Amino acid sequence: MQNFEFYNPTKIFFGEDQFDHLNQEIDTKEKVLLLYGGGSIKKYGVYGKVMSALKDHEVHEFGGIPPNPEYEVLLQALEVIKKVKITYLLAVGGGSVIDGTKFLASAALSSEEEPWKILKDGIRTTNAMPFGTVLTLPATGSEMNSGAVVTRKETGEKLGMGGPGLFPQFSILDPNVVSTLPKRQIANGITDAFVHVMEQYMTYPAGGILQDRLAESIMQTLIEVGPRVLKNPDDYEAASNFMWSCTMALNGIIQKGVPTDWAIHAMGHELTAQFGIDHARTLAIIAASHYEYNFETKREKLAQFGRRVWGINGDDDSVVAKQAIVQMNEFFTSLGIDINLSKYTDDYKGSALKTANALRERGWNGIGEHRNLTPDDVEKIVEMSY
Amino acid sequence: MQNFEFYNPTKIFFGEDQFDHLNQEIDTKEKVLLLYGGGSIKKYGVYGKVMSALKDHEVHEFGGIPPNPEYEVLLQALEVIKKVKITYLLAVGGGSVIDGTKFLASAALSSEEEPWKILKDGIRTTNAMPFGTVLTLPATGSEMNSGAVVTRKETGEKLGMGGPGLFPQFSILDPNVVSTLPKRQIANGITDAFVHVMEQYMTYPAGGILQDRLAESIMQTLIEVGPRVLKNPDDYEAASNFMWSCTMALNGIIQKGVPTDWAIHAMGHELTAQFGIDHARTLAIIAASHYEYNFETKREKLAQFGRRVWGINGDDDSVVAKQAIVQMNEFFTSLGIDINLSKYTDDYKGSALKTANALRERGWNGIGEHRNLTPDDVEKIVEMSY
Repeated sequence: MQNFEFYNPTKIFFGEDQFDHLNQEIDTKEKVLLLYGGGSIKKYGVYGKVMSALKDHEVHEFGGIPPNPEYEVLLQALEVIKKVKITYLLAVGGGSVIDGTKFLASAALSSEEEPWKILKDGIRTTNAMPFGTVLTLPATGSEMNSGAVVTRKETGEKLGMGGPGLFPQFSILDPNVVSTLPKRQIANGITDAFVHVMEQYMTYPAGGILQDRLAESIMQTLIEVGPRVLKNPDDYEAASNFMWSCTMALNGIIQKGVPTDWAIHAMGHELTAQFGIDHARTLAIIAASHYEYNFETKREKLAQFGRRVWGINGDDDSVVAKQAIVQMNEFFTSLGIDINLSKYTDDYKGSALKTANALRERGWNGIGEHRNLTPDDVEKIVEMSY
Repeated sequence: MQNFEFYNPTKIFFGEDQFDHLNQEIDTKEKVLLLYGGGSIKKYGVYGKVMSALKDHEVHEFGGIPPNPEYEVLLQALEVIKKVKITYLLAVGGGSVIDGTKFLASAALSSEEEPWKILKDGIRTTNAMPFGTVLTLPATGSEMNSGAVVTRKETGEKLGMGGPGLFPQFSILDPNVVSTLPKRQIANGITDAFVHVMEQYMTYPAGGILQDRLAESIMQTLIEVGPRVLKNPDDYEAASNFMWSCTMALNGIIQKGVPTDWAIHAMGHELTAQFGIDHARTLAIIAASHYEYNFETKREKLAQFGRRVWGINGDDDSVVAKQAIVQMNEFFTSLGIDINLSKYTDDYKGSALKTANALRERGWNGIGEHRNLTPDDVEKIVEMSY
């Protein structure tokens, strides 16, 4: 096991009827900015519950944060924060709204004149405006970690940021929100969480015996409850396990003490930037190609994945490992997720080179758990995903 | 899944060469009281490393906290804290030293004239003196939770306390300490952690699909690495997984959203009070009898435990469940842990009634996950453990 530091102070309120905690967790002295996305929170009652819990607070609103939160839109919210002298942010939404709120929490107290520098220069955020979240879409895990990804439309960039100041103070997770989601978003959430686990698990063996098993637990749970939720989003037992699995997939627990990969995300982000494909779907497009391309270094873990998660028997690691990749792809397609880029766009042909060049421009010359995948490798992997 | 609240702000520094963090985590303004047990920390170099990291701090010392930390001894430490005007506590030891430190952190800021009231009246601690820990004995998980158990020799009581003020600010976990431990303590640690998981897992099914799998992961890891550590305590990979499993067994993660039992602990504590048997061993003594006595309500989970953790095949839940109990006992005995009370004392005969009466006196008329095990039931279970 590798040395690690673990710290996660986010308070979780999980289950039904948790909205009243808002009133206890946010002091009535605070000037709150409620941030949300396309407005589905008004359609499905979450907005009303939040506002009713905050009836003693001064609450301002900023809606319209788009999926893959856009820098340009967030700058408008930043203006509101400064103008109204907001002191507390409340994200009500999915990963995009929460990530956007994290950016704002950082930018609001930053001394940078151009807040994009926080992302461009990879500045760690230690001091941020306090914020909480109400999660309406299980997927990214952003509700219980200190990372965020922001997109800049004009330059086509999609960059990450983070730091110990960016943990939500609290997050409210009510599994009932799952029943209000389009199936497309549920399938995305399952896939997103599954690949999050894979990125922290499917590496070279490093003696993280417990971490491996915890990661396998989350994947096994997603495999069990994913189809149940898709079939019946009112199935509270399945929805609650889906929701908590998404959070546990990226709250730090399974990542500590082991190497992590994240190459699938690096490539996937470029496909979203190029074609606007849903984040989770870009991960499913890249995953199998990435594992096939790096088969030699990942064989042992792929075989373990095959045996423990998919119950594949057999002594030959290579055979089991290959079968495991097939099973993973079948799982994605069973959720309605296409795993080939050409299913999403006719314009796919130049995409591999474009992706490789985007990483080149960024100076990312070695990605993956060994930091040795070059842009040339990336080009081949994306091409295998056509 | 049941509703839950999760919050755990303890910062973990895990691995080799982590002692320098002491200097960053404790402000040099603080007046530190270093608390420890029988002095093994001086024998094995931990003391030297701690003092060297704290060379810029004012450090006072209080040694001699015994296993099952005794109230009478802790009162002496409390006197030191008040006299010297200590502002920060540092526990260097195992669960007993850490639990004792938690009591002191609470008592130091409590307005109770007789601090025993904190335990006797079950007063939750929200405000406590800040403290950190350096773990020298993986077992109880106290290094990353907010609970503690304190013993009062004169009355034979062993009572728990807790509250959000009792999370360590940080804990340093260096797996190298394992190689300095007597095998007896390693076996105790494995058993303690294993039963901690069981108490949060072996209940009626409640839809905690993810939690069940996470619990099974920890048990599977202990089963895998336990014998390795016992055989070769220098095996760093095994020691690190053993150590992190003990912490993960009781840091709240697997307990949230599911019913918990803790009847084994309630009975085991009495055996420690009566005979001075090591805490972990009392758990191994009681466990099987408890599961056999409550076989009907626990059958489904016992069978799941048998299939998933022990790999027992078979369609008949009862058969698999019974075999699972046998396997659990064989695991304990393979670690050198006797599972019958009569192996520890010749004086066992009145123990069942004594245990039942102790619970009666305390007004504990219903323990276990259904809170329906009466002192009469307890008497029968302890008798089955002779």
